[in-house]
Amino acid sequence: MTTIDINGDLGESYGNFRVGDDERLMQVITSANIACGFHAGDFNVMNTTVDLAKQHDVAIGAHPGLPDIFGFGRRRMDISAEEAHHLVTYQLGALAAFTKLHGTRLHHVKPHGALYNMAAKDRQLADAVARAVRDFDPQLKLVGLCNSALVEAGHDVGLPVLEEAFADRTYTEEGQLTPRSEPNAVLEDQRHMEQQVLKMVEHGQVTTSSGHTIALKPDTICFHGDGAEAFENVRYIRRILGKKGISISPAGGKI
Amino acid sequence: MTTIDINGDLGESYGNFRVGDDERLMQVITSANIACGFHAGDFNVMNTTVDLAKQHDVAIGAHPGLPDIFGFGRRRMDISAEEAHHLVTYQLGALAAFTKLHGTRLHHVKPHGALYNMAAKDRQLADAVARAVRDFDPQLKLVGLCNSALVEAGHDVGLPVLEEAFADRTYTEEGQLTPRSEPNAVLEDQRHMEQQVLKMVEHGQVTTSSGHTIALKPDTICFHGDGAEAFENVRYIRRILGKKGISISPAGGKI
Amino acid sequence: MTTIDINGDLGESYGNFRVGDDERLMQVITSANIACGFHAGDFNVMNTTVDLAKQHDVAIGAHPGLPDIFGFGRRRMDISAEEAHHLVTYQLGALAAFTKLHGTRLHHVKPHGALYNMAAKDRQLADAVARAVRDFDPQLKLVGLCNSALVEAGHDVGLPVLEEAFADRTYTEEGQLTPRSEPNAVLEDQRHMEQQVLKMVEHGQVTTSSGHTIALKPDTICFHGDGAEAFENVRYIRRILGKKGISISPAGGKI
Amino acid sequence: MTTIDINGDLGESYGNFRVGDDERLMQVITSANIACGFHAGDFNVMNTTVDLAKQHDVAIGAHPGLPDIFGFGRRRMDISAEEAHHLVTYQLGALAAFTKLHGTRLHHVKPHGALYNMAAKDRQLADAVARAVRDFDPQLKLVGLCNSALVEAGHDVGLPVLEEAFADRTYTEEGQLTPRSEPNAVLEDQRHMEQQVLKMVEHGQVTTSSGHTIALKPDTICFHGDGAEAFENVRYIRRILGKKGISISPAGGKI
Repeated sequence: MTTIDINGDLGESYGNFRVGDDERLMQVITSANIACGFHAGDFNVMNTTVDLAKQHDVAIGAHPGLPDIFGFGRRRMDISAEEAHHLVTYQLGALAAFTKLHGTRLHHVKPHGALYNMAAKDRQLADAVARAVRDFDPQLKLVGLCNSALVEAGHDVGLPVLEEAFADRTYTEEGQLTPRSEPNAVLEDQRHMEQQVLKMVEHGQVTTSSGHTIALKPDTICFHGDGAEAFENVRYIRRILGKKGISISPAGGKI
Repeated sequence: MTTIDINGDLGESYGNFRVGDDERLMQVITSANIACGFHAGDFNVMNTTVDLAKQHDVAIGAHPGLPDIFGFGRRRMDISAEEAHHLVTYQLGALAAFTKLHGTRLHHVKPHGALYNMAAKDRQLADAVARAVRDFDPQLKLVGLCNSALVEAGHDVGLPVLEEAFADRTYTEEGQLTPRSEPNAVLEDQRHMEQQVLKMVEHGQVTTSSGHTIALKPDTICFHGDGAEAFENVRYIRRILGKKGISISPAGGKI
Repeated sequence: MTTIDINGDLGESYGNFRVGDDERLMQVITSANIACGFHAGDFNVMNTTVDLAKQHDVAIGAHPGLPDIFGFGRRRMDISAEEAHHLVTYQLGALAAFTKLHGTRLHHVKPHGALYNMAAKDRQLADAVARAVRDFDPQLKLVGLCNSALVEAGHDVGLPVLEEAFADRTYTEEGQLTPRSEPNAVLEDQRHMEQQVLKMVEHGQVTTSSGHTIALKPDTICFHGDGAEAFENVRYIRRILGKKGISISPAGGKI
Repeated sequence: MTTIDINGDLGESYGNFRVGDDERLMQVITSANIACGFHAGDFNVMNTTVDLAKQHDVAIGAHPGLPDIFGFGRRRMDISAEEAHHLVTYQLGALAAFTKLHGTRLHHVKPHGALYNMAAKDRQLADAVARAVRDFDPQLKLVGLCNSALVEAGHDVGLPVLEEAFADRTYTEEGQLTPRSEPNAVLEDQRHMEQQVLKMVEHGQVTTSSGHTIALKPDTICFHGDGAEAFENVRYIRRILGKKGISISPAGGKI
């Protein structure tokens, strides 16, 4: 039976600033990537979000980012591989303390924003991230962009690796995300998302933005958007997948 | 044989800002309270400081503070007991990730600055801090001011508790620290520190700022000051204690 | 002809975090209190908000707060009067640079959150805030809670002072805000807000939460709530005021 | 008579973190570049440093940086030209509020760290910085690296421009700073600094790290290092310059 994981980024509120509708989104995803206080999230939000994920039986992942609340971790900044190792270590420890508090544990790690993008291309940075995860807990699953340096780095340090694709982003012929600066980078129509997700899940393929078909077989699919929008898109795709007899559950098995 | 622990606050540098001379101080203390990134310290500094403590066989403690780099955690701010629980949880997890990375583990927890002072008097806050430590690891030793609410809270949740006294601060007849706003709050002369430490360690007593003798029997003694000053004071006191046949080692035993 | 000013807190977004619906609220208020980057707002948001206020011919005020993005400036923290002077000076300068950039200027200053509340009761802090405003520009109008220490302090340093009341908060017999911890602290019903605003504007009186009538004659009325809620409330009250022939314009005259 | 300006970066302390020995350095420099709270400095430090500069009759300059206390503004991060305009505007306003408070005014603007380096090469960013300065006050002198994009941008918007050279950095044949990653990037010996400064000031030339002579005629010379080191170097060079009859005073004249 074909199985796919659906992941979402959650716990991105910070202090008085509210982001997303985590309560709804938690109802339809199978894996949650929870911000760890560096690009978003704080100790109160992390506690609430871990609790919420546990209640909904959603696999809990750390979503470590660059130390940049103001830039939401989306802004590239110079960091050395050594710093990347340390900042991932710090954030994994912080989030794991909340999983312990709630009697559960971490399932996976997916870097956020600029750190995710930098680790997708910069092998040295990717190695540092992968080592930080491995050193913290070698059973944690490392989530990286399909075909990225981070995926390779994860395999090389012996971590279980999950390859991620996006429901709403188009791909180049090299299997990379079409840059957001290009006009057709994002799929807005649910039907297009549906076609892309089904082709990935059923056939291990994607139609590139230039119209070709290439191989791309993700273990987990990410849905962007704020809470309401992501909720609607995920619910729609879940219904389609359900009709096709495709099972939806955390990638790599539950913890 | 009489034994005493000597602790110091370390790892308080932050980014480009340098604080203290940790390399020297690590040579003479037996317990290090390491900042966890909220009032001072960062992921790079924490990594270095844990490594340094391990090399010097110094017991590693978490030194969680209020979220206030600008105020160095010394500025009282309104936080609820629930927030205190979460912010201690977060910081314990973050520091423990570095002890794991270096193949060692946490020995104790001592709140920093305003959090230490608030938890010394506010029993509700003290309970929250004690529960956070107990929930994270019930074997961690909780360090609090002699006769404080935090010490009581620690006992009540079943944690091993270490009572702390200061070599360079004077005491009121109630066994509290003389407020810094009063003229004789701080001892500057090494001879006075020597007399105070010896009386505490040998007799379980302290001479109050008003000239009376009260009972005060600490498990660990803290030395303030920047690296150089603290180093000289500790080295001096160690020599005195050595002559008296008093052993110096981490309170509550090593991990 | 009776005149009243309606003010709102705006420009409270920060980086990627969105707060309020400033575009709508700007259509119905006459004075905007713009966050200056300490409790909310950032250099990009300040630029946009000043531009928006200018377009809508809304009087531009600085809304300086405590240095606390995480706590949104609502958390009391220990600051000295001297620090209060400096932090107000800093924020006034920063916002004034954007009014200069857009060819306009500051009209008033209203402290935010905990700073507003602390300066309402602590005369020493109130004096420091008032002096900071006076030293920066003695023509700036200082906005403070009716009957507060800040209002007195403003008068004493010779500033034009505007007394503020709230459409949706109830008052004690001493003319203070009913603490939010009490059940009837907040008015939720538009009809109750209407009655309260009309009584203040037309008769210079307010019915206290205990049912008595006391004198309270504000120069400006603040509406809380996020963008949508505040917008609806202000629009409703404006219609009522319009029917009564009451003019709505910036307190103390335009700049 | 030949004249040269000697500038230093000051006011870089932050909260409890102390940087440099501003009191000594202020005795020997003619221009101070004062941090504005983004990469270092805070509202209390800015107040103190402006006061100190005024007392020593040192020309006061703004030293705006990237919003990055943790990275001390030395870490490149992605910012758009528009953001650069806004963050310079904000910082100029904030510092100018303190010059107004002390009855003096701004003399010049010199970007800090990564912003300085980025604006030296990226003409679009340089234009944004130059426009921010011009829009705030067209009489402010803009300080940029000799031969840099920022110098060109300053001239193009009509600002008075001061070209800066470094006493302790070597130059490539293209007139650029030798990257710090190369072995001979920094001069450590006072005699070498002396030779370099004299050649620049007397002959408008510099000997490159490869041994050639190129034209380089700075208006102001910067000395790095912490307070003590910079103080000694500046004092030494001042003595040499004095013997040669070279006058030392703020570039572009006093305000």
